[in-house]
Amino acid sequence: MGRVVIDISLSLDGFVAGPNATLDEPLGEGGMRLHEWIIGLDAWRERHGLEGGERSVDNRIMEESLARTGAVLMGRKMWSGGSGPWEDDANAGGWWGDEPPFRVPVFVLTHHPRAGEVKADTPVEFVTEGIEAALARARAAAGEWDVLIAGGANVAQQALAAGLVDEVQVHIAPVLLGDGVRLFDAAGSSPPQLELERAIESPSVTHIRYRVARP
Amino acid sequence: MGRVVIDISLSLDGFVAGPNATLDEPLGEGGMRLHEWIIGLDAWRERHGLEGGERSVDNRIMEESLARTGAVLMGRKMWSGGSGPWEDDANAGGWWGDEPPFRVPVFVLTHHPRAGEVKADTPVEFVTEGIEAALARARAAAGEWDVLIAGGANVAQQALAAGLVDEVQVHIAPVLLGDGVRLFDAAGSSPPQLELERAIESPSVTHIRYRVARP
Repeated sequence: MGRVVIDISLSLDGFVAGPNATLDEPLGEGGMRLHEWIIGLDAWRERHGLEGGERSVDNRIMEESLARTGAVLMGRKMWSGGSGPWEDDANAGGWWGDEPPFRVPVFVLTHHPRAGEVKADTPVEFVTEGIEAALARARAAAGEWDVLIAGGANVAQQALAAGLVDEVQVHIAPVLLGDGVRLFDAAGSSPPQLELERAIESPSVTHIRYRVARP
Repeated sequence: MGRVVIDISLSLDGFVAGPNATLDEPLGEGGMRLHEWIIGLDAWRERHGLEGGERSVDNRIMEESLARTGAVLMGRKMWSGGSGPWEDDANAGGWWGDEPPFRVPVFVLTHHPRAGEVKADTPVEFVTEGIEAALARARAAAGEWDVLIAGGANVAQQALAAGLVDEVQVHIAPVLLGDGVRLFDAAGSSPPQLELERAIESPSVTHIRYRVARP
């Protein structure tokens, strides 16, 4: 079986998004600064239909992550920024238009039922039965590959609290946001044990990977 | 002139101490886990009158920090764990007994006046005029060497907010505490800009150093 991996960019002060997210600024004020390291990469550009780009150590980290990933799990907020019934969600189609960059099955955790669909190379399913069911379906779809939990923070926290995460990879951007959405806001009083696997330096971000001890 | 450096260990979830600190557990529940990387080091042991110890990359980081440091600034809580008038503080002499490991001038930021003293190789002064005055005195004492802000979080936050910090070095322990005292809790809405200087991997901790842009 593959592993369940939280893979996320955050600021040095622990935020995965800035405050006051809107449709125009889905990552909140300053939140895009956490992702500046990724925008110019060859692997990222290829996934977004663009040519050229950096083939740096950061690119290698991203290629490795893409190559290992067999399914993606994300929260409703990461999919569309919305909440409540889908028919009232102005961005129900998601941030990525008709050609999402994932090219593996995507599972969106939501309280609101919705039929699955296929967008170009990316099948999307909407799961209302909670984090355990969503991860079970994502694991089945991923097979021998990994399930990547891409965000938001709430879904990552739910998966960690449920003892369902094997690995956490953080990309720490050299940024202080001062406010926003914390990756680790609600870990509570008995968070899991970690084991440091590796830290990789680049000029623009620090990649650190941890093993999570299963309870 | 030397630089003003925040140099501090923290958990992956951003805490520099666990919750519920006491005289018996000054770093709060689980807080000692943030410092496990340092206890076995040759440089740490030498400063505490012990022989032998690891000469690892972590030791080199600590030696480098010691060699650069000309004065140490810390908060009252880091000095004694207490608050209020010194005569009511059961630990007024500090955690380190008669031979503190610093061997450079130490400045303790406090609301309560107290005469300075010299403990073995470590002169200690108590500063009541606020963070700017404390840093000015520490810089004068440090001369060409650095002022190390060792903690706690509150003093580090005050110095950052006042635009008086040149460098932040964090040692990220592979630990989730779930609760406690955050290093970056009150950075507010206009935190300073950072520049990533280096990240150094070891088997037990990740050392990352940032330059802070002066306003």
